[in-house]
Amino acid sequence: MKLIIAVIGGDARYLELIRQLQAIENIELILVGYDKLEQSFTGLNQTEFEDLNCEELDIVILPITGTDEEGKVETVFSVEEIRITEDWFHRLKEDAVVFTGIANDHLTELTTKTKTSLIPLLDRDDVAIYNSIPTAEGTIMMAIENTDYTIHSSRVIVTGFGRVGNTVANKFSALGAKVSVATRKSTDLARITEMGLTPIELNKLPEYTSECDLLINTIPALVITKEAIQNLPSNAVIIDLASKPGGTDFEYAKQRGIEAILARSLPSIVAPKTAGKILADVIIQILTKEKELLGWT
Amino acid sequence: MKLIIAVIGGDARYLELIRQLQAIENIELILVGYDKLEQSFTGLNQTEFEDLNCEELDIVILPITGTDEEGKVETVFSVEEIRITEDWFHRLKEDAVVFTGIANDHLTELTTKTKTSLIPLLDRDDVAIYNSIPTAEGTIMMAIENTDYTIHSSRVIVTGFGRVGNTVANKFSALGAKVSVATRKSTDLARITEMGLTPIELNKLPEYTSECDLLINTIPALVITKEAIQNLPSNAVIIDLASKPGGTDFEYAKQRGIEAILARSLPSIVAPKTAGKILADVIIQILTKEKELLGWT
Repeated sequence: MKLIIAVIGGDARYLELIRQLQAIENIELILVGYDKLEQSFTGLNQTEFEDLNCEELDIVILPITGTDEEGKVETVFSVEEIRITEDWFHRLKEDAVVFTGIANDHLTELTTKTKTSLIPLLDRDDVAIYNSIPTAEGTIMMAIENTDYTIHSSRVIVTGFGRVGNTVANKFSALGAKVSVATRKSTDLARITEMGLTPIELNKLPEYTSECDLLINTIPALVITKEAIQNLPSNAVIIDLASKPGGTDFEYAKQRGIEAILARSLPSIVAPKTAGKILADVIIQILTKEKELLGWT
Repeated sequence: MKLIIAVIGGDARYLELIRQLQAIENIELILVGYDKLEQSFTGLNQTEFEDLNCEELDIVILPITGTDEEGKVETVFSVEEIRITEDWFHRLKEDAVVFTGIANDHLTELTTKTKTSLIPLLDRDDVAIYNSIPTAEGTIMMAIENTDYTIHSSRVIVTGFGRVGNTVANKFSALGAKVSVATRKSTDLARITEMGLTPIELNKLPEYTSECDLLINTIPALVITKEAIQNLPSNAVIIDLASKPGGTDFEYAKQRGIEAILARSLPSIVAPKTAGKILADVIIQILTKEKELLGWT
């Protein structure tokens, strides 16, 4: 039995995602929102959204951004306006699965109401860990571009020791930086010590920033406060990886003349191909694991 | 006794070099060729070349580029034209020491004729190894900027295992790339194996390039030949770190549509401050070691 998958919208990452899915047997792929793509995919079925037989679909893959609050789907490679409605979800097969990057309230509400299985990929721990690799490499690129000293021997403080903080601390340490990590959890402080890095109690951060060249935040809350910033050397750089609006008092940093950069979606910027492969791998893994459930043989 | 040092010309790296020398006791610094510098150095003696009492100088520091074939000295922060003549070298004290980055035939000839001690810093092994760090970081930056996949998991071949090749192989491996190193020497092949990397006999390189995402050359001879290039995957990138004209058949790479980049002076581009500190550290180390010889107390 073939699994019918519709990819509806998406950005550069999805080109690799589609390429990876194309290589799997027993999958029939239908692309919606790729009509303006220069290098088109050979042997793939492209259609307009309204011509899509949604009653036939086993899997729907929405863009990383899912839908907006009106149900609109982002299509980078098309001018077609696609809007997904409650009725559309109702028409899907009962056991159809919808993948998205993130889910906002609107999408969650719609799929709950229509009893559609929704899998927000970026919420998954494994995806977040895989994505932390291109995020860390993007941070390395930004650090090299925005300083006049090497990462090697520089004093780096990473705030947060979640999936991104851990990887970033690791990579900068591997390049020869002197890395400290600031966090609240005692388990994390122990792990940081085990890794040969310097642990800092997050609430004591301002006591340590006078000895810091590069301050990298991964915590989505205001942790890079005025107090932390005012002790930084004047040529220090802050890179904030937390999702918008970041965790830095940007106004105060600007006032002090300290460069502070809010980084956005590094995986899609520095490694769209890898980012697409990460999504494909996880989707394929989920489909393979649940293939009996899905009737995929 | 004070050591009188004249810094004649130089680029951004020399600002840090001057800052470091300024911090040393018993040194009197005279700057020539810094009159257009925006942030001027406080408490430093600046003068024009013709007003310099060269008979008094213990140390002369020329730019990284030394002089050109007419004896002209590069001054990035001045419009003054400075030309160093045989007569000028004759007027230096007998035990004066002249530092330069590199020495061309002209400079070598002049200093040999006038029996002046000339120390070309970039010829030194220690300087080359220290400089290989910003070179490797610049290579990492270029790799991230010029590919759509992560360094992590990518297949990297480094040609050459000298001072730069060794560091580059190390750093890419530390970031999770699958690194192979191609070299002729059996000792190097043994060391590469010990490091957990894959050794390749340089003359067999074309047999390995079909499995290569990133080809990084450090050998100043044509080793990235047509044969090596024709087997590369079409989305592979070549970064050539060897000094001009590099070691790549750039014309053939272009013909095949493979991106090939000749990188120039990465330390001064990505980390002028570190590059200046490297020079300062080595100069200070040489002066300290030979201070009795130089009468420096």
